[in-house]
Amino acid sequence: MSGTPIGLFTDYGQRDVYVGVLRSVILDIWPRATLFDLTHDVPPQNLLSGAWLLASAHHFLPKRCIVCAVVDPGVGTERRAVVVETAAGYRFVAPDNGLLELVLRQDPAARAVELDRDRWFLPKRSATFDGRDVFAPVAAQLARGVRLDALGSELDAGQLQRLQIPENEREDGRVRGRVLHIDHFGNVISTLGAGELAARTGGGVLRVRCADVEYPFVKTFADVSPGDRLSYIGSAGVLELAVREGNCAARDGIEQGDVIDLCAAPSP
Amino acid sequence: MSGTPIGLFTDYGQRDVYVGVLRSVILDIWPRATLFDLTHDVPPQNLLSGAWLLASAHHFLPKRCIVCAVVDPGVGTERRAVVVETAAGYRFVAPDNGLLELVLRQDPAARAVELDRDRWFLPKRSATFDGRDVFAPVAAQLARGVRLDALGSELDAGQLQRLQIPENEREDGRVRGRVLHIDHFGNVISTLGAGELAARTGGGVLRVRCADVEYPFVKTFADVSPGDRLSYIGSAGVLELAVREGNCAARDGIEQGDVIDLCAAPSP
Amino acid sequence: MSGTPIGLFTDYGQRDVYVGVLRSVILDIWPRATLFDLTHDVPPQNLLSGAWLLASAHHFLPKRCIVCAVVDPGVGTERRAVVVETAAGYRFVAPDNGLLELVLRQDPAARAVELDRDRWFLPKRSATFDGRDVFAPVAAQLARGVRLDALGSELDAGQLQRLQIPENEREDGRVRGRVLHIDHFGNVISTLGAGELAARTGGGVLRVRCADVEYPFVKTFADVSPGDRLSYIGSAGVLELAVREGNCAARDGIEQGDVIDLCAAPSP
Repeated sequence: MSGTPIGLFTDYGQRDVYVGVLRSVILDIWPRATLFDLTHDVPPQNLLSGAWLLASAHHFLPKRCIVCAVVDPGVGTERRAVVVETAAGYRFVAPDNGLLELVLRQDPAARAVELDRDRWFLPKRSATFDGRDVFAPVAAQLARGVRLDALGSELDAGQLQRLQIPENEREDGRVRGRVLHIDHFGNVISTLGAGELAARTGGGVLRVRCADVEYPFVKTFADVSPGDRLSYIGSAGVLELAVREGNCAARDGIEQGDVIDLCAAPSP
Repeated sequence: MSGTPIGLFTDYGQRDVYVGVLRSVILDIWPRATLFDLTHDVPPQNLLSGAWLLASAHHFLPKRCIVCAVVDPGVGTERRAVVVETAAGYRFVAPDNGLLELVLRQDPAARAVELDRDRWFLPKRSATFDGRDVFAPVAAQLARGVRLDALGSELDAGQLQRLQIPENEREDGRVRGRVLHIDHFGNVISTLGAGELAARTGGGVLRVRCADVEYPFVKTFADVSPGDRLSYIGSAGVLELAVREGNCAARDGIEQGDVIDLCAAPSP
Repeated sequence: MSGTPIGLFTDYGQRDVYVGVLRSVILDIWPRATLFDLTHDVPPQNLLSGAWLLASAHHFLPKRCIVCAVVDPGVGTERRAVVVETAAGYRFVAPDNGLLELVLRQDPAARAVELDRDRWFLPKRSATFDGRDVFAPVAAQLARGVRLDALGSELDAGQLQRLQIPENEREDGRVRGRVLHIDHFGNVISTLGAGELAARTGGGVLRVRCADVEYPFVKTFADVSPGDRLSYIGSAGVLELAVREGNCAARDGIEQGDVIDLCAAPSP
């Protein structure tokens, strides 16, 4: 029989044993957990990238999955630690700092508890490593079968901390979005969803611009030549900018938060 | 009971959730899979390095192993997706682009199928992420026990795409090889196999040169002083160049494809 | 039933298949192992960082855990390969080069054997990759249930290689420690333990200096403003230096081995 899958999602990076210690703590409490890594390379303390990356993995999580999600610039402050169970039945163990914002827009919270009971934490809690001392042990207890209401006090999901996500601005025939995240290949992920684009095109051709540079809108990489710019609906259903076989963000100097403009091209 | 091992091999890097999503998709379909990472840091879209790295791991794969191997510069084009079963019984799920070239020179294809049946893919296939939509689900189905002939149409192994590997050039008393791959330590892996070297030496001393620099041929690192150059038969059975406790490729400016010359030294 | 956990700890990095091959070798010998990564990014061949990282994970290891620990600048020399079982019952498979020094100061060796029996190694042992050929197969054999005395010849724990760790220097009212390790965030880990600090303060205020720069001693990151320096007792119980939301080592040019001075501040 396979164990409950526990996905690990942090900004701890790979160069230290921090993630190794999370794994150790979980396997010590619940040896039958099926641990797997979502990622440990969220840009350090970047909640916006964290929220995006988590949401883009969310629809593909295995059934019954527990996610231990730690991007936690407020460790050591009074920010809450929580478990949120979504309508689809996933459970997220995380700091209450907005990291779950985009997940919960896709799949609303069905229940939430505040982790306010020391008995589930490691005995000597440090001031800087709640991943090890709080989040990992609680994820393991959930996998062991401890119920949500035993882990902490019920919390109204409306009380959960929100994260400011830049809103797209609409204005006759054009939409302005933002750069949400830049990936490993230098591809640029935007806030502009496929629905937004469909609404704009009206059957016509789209023009996509970022910092006065145009990114021809195509279906996939193979539609342009190596070294050329393109824009397309990426695998997460939002507009992305890229350079075929190149690093778009580095070449064009694009950063998180930059503006991306979208409009229907005039008929030729 | 342990699950079928599925080794993951990609150029996705660790900075995003792409690999996390592969793992999620597989565990959702087949929770009993034993997932393990071969590597996710093949140099992006570098089929030559990919082919080498896969082949150097190949002899050590666990019995019954399925490998989900994705280095896929042609994603979104008409390139085929395939499963190849080797004579030794390993199964590789991969794009048909030559990535398996060096594996299949070691262990020929016993059977191959083209993945031409949508029913085994994720329902909404994107144009850019076949790892998630095609290769991971098929690997999971294989682990679940779905048979090759149910997964796709039989393919003649001779039809599989080949990869151009630079051939060594032999000429009276000397051999010219190439740099095949540069590893994490900056060690330089060549196309020159141990057999080649044995044939050249005739019992004498070997001289190894790259870009007019000489790399004394020894048995192992400890045979030279820290900071000194060396060449030796590496753990994969081919000639490597290195600097003890240093980064050879960076120091000597060596790149993939560079020439390495080998000859027997004149008797002293 | 869950398998014996085997933690992997190396300086192999993630860019090659070296770690993937370790995993393959172990799963081939013992498919029921529960593999997990402690880290693979020990700074290459840096025994001091290795010893520190291993010791900082050690207290959190799962019960019955086997650790395959390979930081091995002496591979190919006459250095011994060993298995050390600690008083707490963990088993470490490692080169005998001091890598276990700090673990064994926390948890002394109960037994040790020298790996002097080829029958447990891979058949064709290379000169440069004992991780694959020696340490991984032995870790798998241990997980399979092979007993220590079958694996090699008994060794007096006093004979194990020691590692020189810089000693703190104490002098009327001040202590001088060293930088032991620099982590992924650029936080600076010192040799100064919490006990040392408590002994110095005498209830007063601490002053912490490194290279003529002062690091205000606080409880946690949130006690200073973003961009400001701080020092604090880190999650491993030793003094650390950091910059809130910044990279301390890069900004202040701090390196492993640098001096850190600690004294009680004069009463105000």
